Amino acid sequence: IKFLPLFDRVLVERFTAETVTKGGIMLPEKSQGKVLQATVVAVGPGSVSQKGEIHPVSVKVGEKVLLPEYGGTKVVLDDKDYFLFRDADILGKYVE
Amino acid sequence: IKFLPLFDRVLVERFTAETVTKGGIMLPEKSQGKVLQATVVAVGPGSVSQKGEIHPVSVKVGEKVLLPEYGGTKVVLDDKDYFLFRDADILGKYVE
Amino acid sequence: IKFLPLFDRVLVERFTAETVTKGGIMLPEKSQGKVLQATVVAVGPGSVSQKGEIHPVSVKVGEKVLLPEYGGTKVVLDDKDYFLFRDADILGKYVE
Amino acid sequence: IKFLPLFDRVLVERFTAETVTKGGIMLPEKSQGKVLQATVVAVGPGSVSQKGEIHPVSVKVGEKVLLPEYGGTKVVLDDKDYFLFRDADILGKYVE
Amino acid sequence: IKFLPLFDRVLVERFTAETVTKGGIMLPEKSQGKVLQATVVAVGPGSVSQKGEIHPVSVKVGEKVLLPEYGGTKVVLDDKDYFLFRDADILGKYVE
Amino acid sequence: IKFLPLFDRVLVERFTAETVTKGGIMLPEKSQGKVLQATVVAVGPGSVSQKGEIHPVSVKVGEKVLLPEYGGTKVVLDDKDYFLFRDADILGKYVE
Amino acid sequence: IKFLPLFDRVLVERFTAETVTKGGIMLPEKSQGKVLQATVVAVGPGSVSQKGEIHPVSVKVGEKVLLPEYGGTKVVLDDKDYFLFRDADILGKYVE
Repeated sequence: IKFLPLFDRVLVERFTAETVTKGGIMLPEKSQGKVLQATVVAVGPGSVSQKGEIHPVSVKVGEKVLLPEYGGTKVVLDDKDYFLFRDADILGKYVE
Repeated sequence: IKFLPLFDRVLVERFTAETVTKGGIMLPEKSQGKVLQATVVAVGPGSVSQKGEIHPVSVKVGEKVLLPEYGGTKVVLDDKDYFLFRDADILGKYVE
Repeated sequence: IKFLPLFDRVLVERFTAETVTKGGIMLPEKSQGKVLQATVVAVGPGSVSQKGEIHPVSVKVGEKVLLPEYGGTKVVLDDKDYFLFRDADILGKYVE
Repeated sequence: IKFLPLFDRVLVERFTAETVTKGGIMLPEKSQGKVLQATVVAVGPGSVSQKGEIHPVSVKVGEKVLLPEYGGTKVVLDDKDYFLFRDADILGKYVE
Repeated sequence: IKFLPLFDRVLVERFTAETVTKGGIMLPEKSQGKVLQATVVAVGPGSVSQKGEIHPVSVKVGEKVLLPEYGGTKVVLDDKDYFLFRDADILGKYVE
Repeated sequence: IKFLPLFDRVLVERFTAETVTKGGIMLPEKSQGKVLQATVVAVGPGSVSQKGEIHPVSVKVGEKVLLPEYGGTKVVLDDKDYFLFRDADILGKYVE
Repeated sequence: IKFLPLFDRVLVERFTAETVTKGGIMLPEKSQGKVLQATVVAVGPGSVSQKGEIHPVSVKVGEKVLLPEYGGTKVVLDDKDYFLFRDADILGKYVE
C-alpha cells in the first residue's frame, strides 16, 4: 500500500544518525533534537493556481532537503515516522 | 435519501477497528482516540476558482484517505456518523 | 410581498418536528436544540467573481439542505422565522 | 443639493412606524429598537473589480431593502437621518 | 510650491463655520467636534490595479465631499491644516 | 560604493533645518521631533505585479516628498542617516 | 555537496569584521550585534506568480546586500553559518 500526498504536500523521511551519500557522509544538523535534513519519499501533484492550473512541486523523490524548524505533520506508515510538509515551506535541497 | 456535499467538501466514513483492503488489513492509525484513516463516501462538485470555473475535487468515492488531526464537521445520516472535510485539508490517499 | 436575498445569500426555513418527503419521513437532526435541516425558500442571483461575472448559487428553491451549526441571520417574514445563509456555508443537500 | 454615495455605497432611509406599499402596510421589523427595513434613496456608481471595471450596485432607488443588524454610517442631510451601507451588506429586497 | 498626493490619496480642506455654495449655505455637520464636510484641494493619479493599470480617483478638485468620522492624515501646508484620505474612504459627494 | 534599494523601496534623506529650494526656503514640518519632508536619494526598480510585470516607483531622485509619521527603515551610508520607505507609503511630493 | 535555496529564498553570508571590496574596505554596519551587510552565496529559482510563472530573484551570487534587522533562517553548512532570506525582504544592494 502506497501513500500519495495531495496537492503540494511532500512526504519526507528525516535522516537517521548519518546518511551516506555519494558526496560522503552527511552529519544531520539538529535543532532542538530534531533532525532538519530529510529525504523526499513521495510528492503530491502540486498546488492549484487561481486559474485552476496545477503548478508542480519543486522537489523530486530521492532528493535531500533542508526542513524548517517548525511545522510539518507526522504520518505513520508501516510503523515508521514520516512527515508531510508543504513544498513552499521546504527551505532548500542539497545537490552533489 | 442521499446526501451530496456542496463545493469542495468531501464526506468520509472513518475506518472501524480494521479495514480489510485488497492489499491486506490496515490497522487504523489513531491520534487522541480519533481514527485518521477514512473511506470517501461522497464528494462535492468542486471549488470555484476566481474566474468562476469549477476545479474538481482530487479524491474519488471509495478511496482511502488520511485525515488531518483537527477540523471536519460531523454529519449524522441514517444514525451513522460521517465527517465533512474540505478537499484541500485531506492529507493524502492510499493507493494499492 | 416577496423577499429576494441579494448576492449569494439563500433563504431557508428549518424543518419542523418531522418533514415528510417522497423518500419517507426525515427526523431532523438537532444540535444544541437547533434543527440543522432546512428547505430552500428563496435564493439570490449569486456571487460576483473578481472579473465581475455572476456565479449562480448552487441550491434551488425547494431543495432540502444541511445547515452548519453556527452562522445564519434570522429574518422574520409574515411572522415566520426564516434564516439567511451564504451559499458557500451550506454543507450539502439531500437528493431522493 | 444632492448627496451621491461613492463606489458601492447605498444611501437608505429607514421605515418610520408604518410604511404603506402597494402590497399593503409593512410593519417594520425591529431589532434592538432599530428598524431594519429601509427605502433606497441614492446609490453609488458601483464597486471597482480588480481589473478596474465598475460592477454596478444591485439595488435601485425606491426599492425596499432589509438591512443587517449592525454596520452602516449615519449621514444627516437636511436635518434628516440617513444611513450608508455597502451594497454587499444589504441582506435582500422586497418585491411586490 | 504645490503638494501632489500620491496614488489614490485625496487632499481636502474641511469646511470652516459656513461654506457658501451656489445651492445656498451649508452648515457643516459636526461629529465629536470634527467637521465632516470638506472641499477637494488636490488628488493623486489614482490606485494601481493588480494588472498595473492606473484606476483614476473618483472625485475632482473643487468638489464637496463627506468624510468618514475616523482616519485621514493631517498635512500642514503654508500653515494651514489639510487632510489626506484614500479615495475609497470618502463616503460621498454633494452635487448641486 | 552606491546603494540601490530593491523592489519598490525609496531611499530618502530627511531635510535638515531649512532646505533651500527654487521656490524659496521650506521650513520642515516636524512631528514628534521627526522631520517629515525629505529628498529622494535613490529608488528601486519598482514592485512586481501579480502577473510578474514591474510597476515603476512613482517618485524620482531629487524630488521633495512628504513622509508618513511612522514606518521607514534607517540605513547608515558613509556615516549619514538615510531612510527606506515603500513607494506606496510616501504621502505625496512637492512640485514647484 | 551544494545547497540550493528553493523558490525566492536567498542564501547569504554576513560580512566578517571588514570586507575588502574593489571600492575599498567596508566596515559592516551593526545593529544589536548583528552585521547587516552580507554576500549572496546562492539563490533560488524565484517566486511563482499567481499564473504559475517563475519571477526570478533580483540579486545575483557575489553581490553585496543590506539585510533587514529581523527575520532570516540560520543554515549551517560545512560548520559555517549562513542565512536564508526571502528576496523581497532584502533591503538593497551595494554597487561599485
